[in-house]
Amino acid sequence: MYLEHITSPEDVRALPADALPQLADEIRSSIIGETAEVGGHTASNLATVELAIALHRVFRTPDDKIVFDVSHQTYAHKMLTGRAPAFFDPSRYGEVSGFASPGESPHDLFSMGHTSTSVSLACGLAHARDIAGESHDVVAVIGDGALSGGLAFEGLDNAAELASGLIVIVNDNEWSIAPNRGGIYRNLAELRATCGASEHNVFRALGLDYRYLEDGHDIAALEGALRELRGTDHPVVLHIHTEKGHGYEPARSNPEGWHHAVPFDASTGVVRPGATAHPADENYANVTGALLLDWIRTDPRVVAVNAATPYIMGFTPELRELAGDRFVDVGIAEEHAVSFVTGLARAGARPVLGIYATFLQRAYDQLWHDLCLNGANATILVFGASAFGTTDATHLGFFDIPMLGAMPGLTYLAPTCIEEYLDMLSWSIEHEGGPVAIRVPVADVASRPDFAQAEDYTHGWETLREGSDVAILALGDFLSLGECTADELAAHGVEATLVNPRLATSPDEALLAGLAEKHRVVVTLEDGILDGGFGERCARTLAARGDVRTLCYGLERAFVDRYDPRELLASCGITVEKITADVLGTLGR
Amino acid sequence: MYLEHITSPEDVRALPADALPQLADEIRSSIIGETAEVGGHTASNLATVELAIALHRVFRTPDDKIVFDVSHQTYAHKMLTGRAPAFFDPSRYGEVSGFASPGESPHDLFSMGHTSTSVSLACGLAHARDIAGESHDVVAVIGDGALSGGLAFEGLDNAAELASGLIVIVNDNEWSIAPNRGGIYRNLAELRATCGASEHNVFRALGLDYRYLEDGHDIAALEGALRELRGTDHPVVLHIHTEKGHGYEPARSNPEGWHHAVPFDASTGVVRPGATAHPADENYANVTGALLLDWIRTDPRVVAVNAATPYIMGFTPELRELAGDRFVDVGIAEEHAVSFVTGLARAGARPVLGIYATFLQRAYDQLWHDLCLNGANATILVFGASAFGTTDATHLGFFDIPMLGAMPGLTYLAPTCIEEYLDMLSWSIEHEGGPVAIRVPVADVASRPDFAQAEDYTHGWETLREGSDVAILALGDFLSLGECTADELAAHGVEATLVNPRLATSPDEALLAGLAEKHRVVVTLEDGILDGGFGERCARTLAARGDVRTLCYGLERAFVDRYDPRELLASCGITVEKITADVLGTLGR
Repeated sequence: MYLEHITSPEDVRALPADALPQLADEIRSSIIGETAEVGGHTASNLATVELAIALHRVFRTPDDKIVFDVSHQTYAHKMLTGRAPAFFDPSRYGEVSGFASPGESPHDLFSMGHTSTSVSLACGLAHARDIAGESHDVVAVIGDGALSGGLAFEGLDNAAELASGLIVIVNDNEWSIAPNRGGIYRNLAELRATCGASEHNVFRALGLDYRYLEDGHDIAALEGALRELRGTDHPVVLHIHTEKGHGYEPARSNPEGWHHAVPFDASTGVVRPGATAHPADENYANVTGALLLDWIRTDPRVVAVNAATPYIMGFTPELRELAGDRFVDVGIAEEHAVSFVTGLARAGARPVLGIYATFLQRAYDQLWHDLCLNGANATILVFGASAFGTTDATHLGFFDIPMLGAMPGLTYLAPTCIEEYLDMLSWSIEHEGGPVAIRVPVADVASRPDFAQAEDYTHGWETLREGSDVAILALGDFLSLGECTADELAAHGVEATLVNPRLATSPDEALLAGLAEKHRVVVTLEDGILDGGFGERCARTLAARGDVRTLCYGLERAFVDRYDPRELLASCGITVEKITADVLGTLGR
Repeated sequence: MYLEHITSPEDVRALPADALPQLADEIRSSIIGETAEVGGHTASNLATVELAIALHRVFRTPDDKIVFDVSHQTYAHKMLTGRAPAFFDPSRYGEVSGFASPGESPHDLFSMGHTSTSVSLACGLAHARDIAGESHDVVAVIGDGALSGGLAFEGLDNAAELASGLIVIVNDNEWSIAPNRGGIYRNLAELRATCGASEHNVFRALGLDYRYLEDGHDIAALEGALRELRGTDHPVVLHIHTEKGHGYEPARSNPEGWHHAVPFDASTGVVRPGATAHPADENYANVTGALLLDWIRTDPRVVAVNAATPYIMGFTPELRELAGDRFVDVGIAEEHAVSFVTGLARAGARPVLGIYATFLQRAYDQLWHDLCLNGANATILVFGASAFGTTDATHLGFFDIPMLGAMPGLTYLAPTCIEEYLDMLSWSIEHEGGPVAIRVPVADVASRPDFAQAEDYTHGWETLREGSDVAILALGDFLSLGECTADELAAHGVEATLVNPRLATSPDEALLAGLAEKHRVVVTLEDGILDGGFGERCARTLAARGDVRTLCYGLERAFVDRYDPRELLASCGITVEKITADVLGTLGR
């Protein structure tokens, strides 16, 4: 086995050329073996095995700089830069991040997991090189899926202004997570069909030099093309054609399903029993898709919109087919998604955009300047907004409340159970008072058939227990934490009031004042950061009073990586025991 | 005078063709006359007079939909849709917004002032039209300056997928605010040089149909081209060549200076004595440029970066020349600017990015995912973050504290005077603890040569007066408000402690606790929204204590338009008298 002996890229360069196909096979087997056990980005990593080998044969990192866009295709790169055991040794699976991580290796330049940033980052590396009078190569590797993000265009547009060398490798595997969307993919298809010769060439139109390589799995051809570009004195695009899932039939034949795999049987590709990453997510996805399809069938104004992750809102290929032009996937283009939705709403449609919290960050200004400034009647479903969402530092989803809390005129709802979620979603579609966002629960699919339905969710809240001394405002999926805490307090002789505040960013001030009249302590619980969050807003509202103390529980404003959610909460003091003890202490009991 | 009789687009369509040149002259005179008195976007509006006439001759708004990108070139459109008196009648100057405004007219579809949104908004209008089975035309008018924004690319990329009609007019006047940057402008130049025939064509490469019109001031030619496109069944780009400042020599010969004009003598183009829009801005710009040029000359790592508004950080054409490749204008591409700066920092450079608060919103995810996640040693200078900045709803700058307050690891400083600002800026360039943002003061150029310099601005604050009972934390340019309030309290027998907290998003908790020990009331003052702001964070920090009350003063989370800053503050209770009365009341005096 060659891979066992690769401790650095020098070892890759020392191998004879005829050993490389076997090395590629070993890497591919390790990817399949490791992701079969712990899950991961199987298909995208299978596509870049040969490219990673060729890159490390030609360039000398870390002196030369390689930036992998999204960095969810860096498994082979990691194996070739001293981290192979984390992939071939089952006892070390999970030892390295699924994304680039400078803390792991000097060969990784940036922590990154959102798309379309690589060309801009590489422009910065190249400009710094030039003013320092250095001469190494700078390479950005960007997948076709990431090209539809506007930032990639901004990067390419600026790269064309560089008076020095930059290599942009477009790794074209014909897929985003879902099928690609947009004009640029038609251009890539035309370029593939003409072996790069078509006169329609978006890269050349931007002033960039351009080369095409058809077989992105031919190591010798890749090495040859890269050696030609080494030391280039101007920006150049190398467009290579790869196959998502290459070398593994189950992934090759279903690239969308295998974009990110949950543990599976390596020999058959069948998902292991019980091995779904986020069962709660999937259930919320299913009910969302089903409800929206009902709406689409009964209300001609309703349009479901998504940016390259249709599965999060339940839009499977079958549902997309049924919805027709009433479902729009705009591709990886979150900014466009929000402005598009604003245009739809202005013309009288009722759009519902489903998006991960971490990617909604990419459309901050479109939320503020397009959606909210224009008071668009649209619904934004925010998925994964929780400590129980994705646990990679690159994809944290619990920064949403301060983000949406700064949007004038936006109603941000935090349902506590599946019934309330569906009711809020239907309400939002008919609401005519401007945009509504809904924080789709993550932690578990709580069911509360007896939840208190509201005529109008823009104000008011639900009181679940009436007590005295202490009132607990338990936001969204932290309602169960509030219930457990109230139970524990009751065991200590304190009957707490328990409230579902419904609104994540604009607590009902009159009700809060009423609560303060009757209680000595107010506790806020939120599955998000404290800074700029729900609790802070309550604390400020009550701060001028002298008769009530507010205890706020939430997460720290910090990057955490591959954490255990329960441990993270505990480290922030979010446990039934700690909260109970704090309350009892504050009450002087 | 024809213009007096134009009360709706129907009147424009009723005019004989030979009357149109005079109508254009009248519109142009009105633009010059009105902006000479009250200031405004002179040059961009002079370029679109003939286009607006032709659009309203061919299309029938509001049934047909026209979206003007940025909407700072809509003066002629406004005059032709019933709002001419606001431009030709001096007694009505300032009656209409300088941007599109649906509240003014059904012919304006969106409030908008940030660039690059029009194609996405138009895609939404077109898709809503299609699912409703309607058949009107949808037109986006986008300037060349706005094309470099990634959202414009996302819009064009998605427009190419439309199976129905959409017209995108590229109004190419060869200028952004400053000279255009990036590969797409070289492509536009090549298309102009070849009358649209070059095989390098970014629009065609994306799959869009494309037409070129050389003389964008020839009304008949414009009408002809638009009539051909009317009712198109597919997306098409019409590229027209116009001249920024057309018909007014002073603006024509200096398009950058005349992008947004302050009141001037219409006959000579000379700025009126004392008529500078933001004297404080200009002074902060000058000192910023001068200090950065010093740094550039003495430290080879320092790079100044900007996104199409170099003047805000003092980089006049002369300074840009002196700075050479140590100043980079990335064009209208704020996302790229932040990722580029992250790349520069990773390679050891020390970048300083100057940007308006309202435009920094466009790079929220790049701040979070690139700059902060990677702990880049970079400085962001945030301009216009104040109620005293731009007063158009589209460009409000006082939402910055909650935005930057959600960024892990970012230090956000709020200097109180010019000396402290410059000291913080120099400190930030040498700081190695991750990104630093600085809230450049707006309200006035306060001078305090005896400000307390810090060795390390990541913690600590400055106490200006020691008192008892009440402590005032006066953030940034609200220090003078704090001083006046302390004086007024003293007149009522209350000696207040006055603090410059320096840090806008992470108040020093230990110092806050110490303050609470010695005072019964803490007052926070900030020139920004309360929700998610500085005061709220202080209130939460103190909320668990029973011995201190916190009174927070700041702005409401709301869109306000063309407001008087003093009146806005007063409406939010931010006056010396109100704050003093509140404090005395809380103290029971």
